[in-house]
Amino acid sequence: MATRLSREVRLKARPEAIPQAEHFEIVSVPVPDVPEGRFLVRNLYLAVEPAMRGWVSAVANYSAPVGIGEVMRAFAVGRVVASRHPGHAEGDLVTGLLGWREFALCDGSEVTRTVTETDLPPSLSLGVLGLNGLTAYFGLLDLGRPKPGDRVLVSTAAGAVGSAVGQIARIMGCRTVGIAGGPAKTALCRDAFGYDAAVDYRSGDLGAALDAALPGGADVYFDNTSGPVSDAAMARLAVGARVVICGTASQPTWDPWPVGPRMERHVLVKRATVSGLLVLDFRHRFAEAVTRLAAWVRAGRLAYREHVTDGIGTAPGAIAELYRGENVGKRLIRLHDD
Amino acid sequence: MATRLSREVRLKARPEAIPQAEHFEIVSVPVPDVPEGRFLVRNLYLAVEPAMRGWVSAVANYSAPVGIGEVMRAFAVGRVVASRHPGHAEGDLVTGLLGWREFALCDGSEVTRTVTETDLPPSLSLGVLGLNGLTAYFGLLDLGRPKPGDRVLVSTAAGAVGSAVGQIARIMGCRTVGIAGGPAKTALCRDAFGYDAAVDYRSGDLGAALDAALPGGADVYFDNTSGPVSDAAMARLAVGARVVICGTASQPTWDPWPVGPRMERHVLVKRATVSGLLVLDFRHRFAEAVTRLAAWVRAGRLAYREHVTDGIGTAPGAIAELYRGENVGKRLIRLHDD
Repeated sequence: MATRLSREVRLKARPEAIPQAEHFEIVSVPVPDVPEGRFLVRNLYLAVEPAMRGWVSAVANYSAPVGIGEVMRAFAVGRVVASRHPGHAEGDLVTGLLGWREFALCDGSEVTRTVTETDLPPSLSLGVLGLNGLTAYFGLLDLGRPKPGDRVLVSTAAGAVGSAVGQIARIMGCRTVGIAGGPAKTALCRDAFGYDAAVDYRSGDLGAALDAALPGGADVYFDNTSGPVSDAAMARLAVGARVVICGTASQPTWDPWPVGPRMERHVLVKRATVSGLLVLDFRHRFAEAVTRLAAWVRAGRLAYREHVTDGIGTAPGAIAELYRGENVGKRLIRLHDD
Repeated sequence: MATRLSREVRLKARPEAIPQAEHFEIVSVPVPDVPEGRFLVRNLYLAVEPAMRGWVSAVANYSAPVGIGEVMRAFAVGRVVASRHPGHAEGDLVTGLLGWREFALCDGSEVTRTVTETDLPPSLSLGVLGLNGLTAYFGLLDLGRPKPGDRVLVSTAAGAVGSAVGQIARIMGCRTVGIAGGPAKTALCRDAFGYDAAVDYRSGDLGAALDAALPGGADVYFDNTSGPVSDAAMARLAVGARVVICGTASQPTWDPWPVGPRMERHVLVKRATVSGLLVLDFRHRFAEAVTRLAAWVRAGRLAYREHVTDGIGTAPGAIAELYRGENVGKRLIRLHDD
């Protein structure tokens, strides 16, 4: 009998800035046997996140970087196809850090949750019902603390996180202004994600556009960018503003450490609060959030976009695509439909 | 009968950076009569604050700048010497924004509070029981939220605010590390204000000294500086750190706006919270704070230093002195002893 093979994407070299396709290699390995206490997952969709840049970086980050020769750390959703583990039955749909690979042998520590909203597409567990939706949910509600009537400003507003932030803010009764790059994305902000206004940071004077869209400034600023977009936003905070630092997508590297206008004076004068978000810190409350997010999706109040490519061969170049801003919606790699 | 005169310090020219003596002039005016609804205060002590730089600046700030030709905005403590106001009786000791002048005609809106802790020197109402102590109290306790065992790092640690922050943190069961300029101030930090360690930012490698004094980083960083001292501290936050932005004393000007290492990545990776403090936002809780601060002073748990000069003629140059770091303790101008 021929050995069944599983392809996996390994980190080949440590990138100095944005990871490119050439920093990875695809290797075929035998699908492993399942020992006692383990289970085997066949991945359906692999996720691509801006955070992956950090996961392969040796500079200041949350966790140890992915080692050279190791399978790329990644969220994925897959079906349990064999199990000798009491908590995960064959047929279960699970999501978690399963890695950029076709088959993952698991002990359960990789799994964020078993996907129970089986009336919705499984890919949603990687986007609007996954890391991105959860990031938007906890970042906006717990750190941004929006009140009805607040003016909520969102950078990367058409992205997987930003689009959810804007829509949840609307559900909370806020006025929402999105910042995105280019007319297609600003149109998406207004038409698909219900922003009251959308500003194109590539078009003319961002500061003047923000002044026009946000008279009186922002009560909440949800930032995924750092850099000039964020600098313009920080100069337009209202008194008592809450700033959520969710990502630093516009900074190609933190070695050397980039400089920019000091934010201290804005924070001081506006008595603002700037908070950093790691969504995994809210892991104990994921079930609460998924229940609410799924209800909003079913009610048509939380729209999403997915940008799906087929086959594991499309994974290595996908992080660089994200940073070039080429995707619209959650970037996913489809391996199988079930 | 000769008209009684009151000297007052007026803003003569708007400084581009730190206000110097030549930006002010001293003018004598008649002591005003007291109409119905007003009261007259004879000031005993005038205060000098780093915040005064902002009060005369036209750049981003809390409130309208002091106008050219107007009496310099300042906290002071004085005795009510005549009153036709129902809330303020002759003989009362009051503190508030009475201005750099000998006599202030008031309608009550200037008064922060009536000083009731008459067993303690009246000058304390401008320092450890005034703006500085209140700033330390609310900044540390409400924004810094220290827990017993937390490592609390304080810049301008020997100053009027910083010395109170360090001591209140110790009362709360924290380990305290102070940053100050020069061996005399670091000795004061250790010997008078009970810091567990004190680091001289003028001596050698600040980062290495902080690493040695704060293994594992700071759980709370209370900043009065901005600039390189703060940059070194921000790179040494513990996960979940709270940063209190209280002042930006090391920045001579915000026009042009200074640049520095971006703090976003530290905030993100450490899931830190950076909050700006304006103590007047806590005005409704001043009585609570003064009661506790006064009790700590009486118990010998909250030491303070004052740097007093005599006569209103010493006021105009006093802000520049502060920024040169020449004072030790709260900078005060004494006009009368009672």
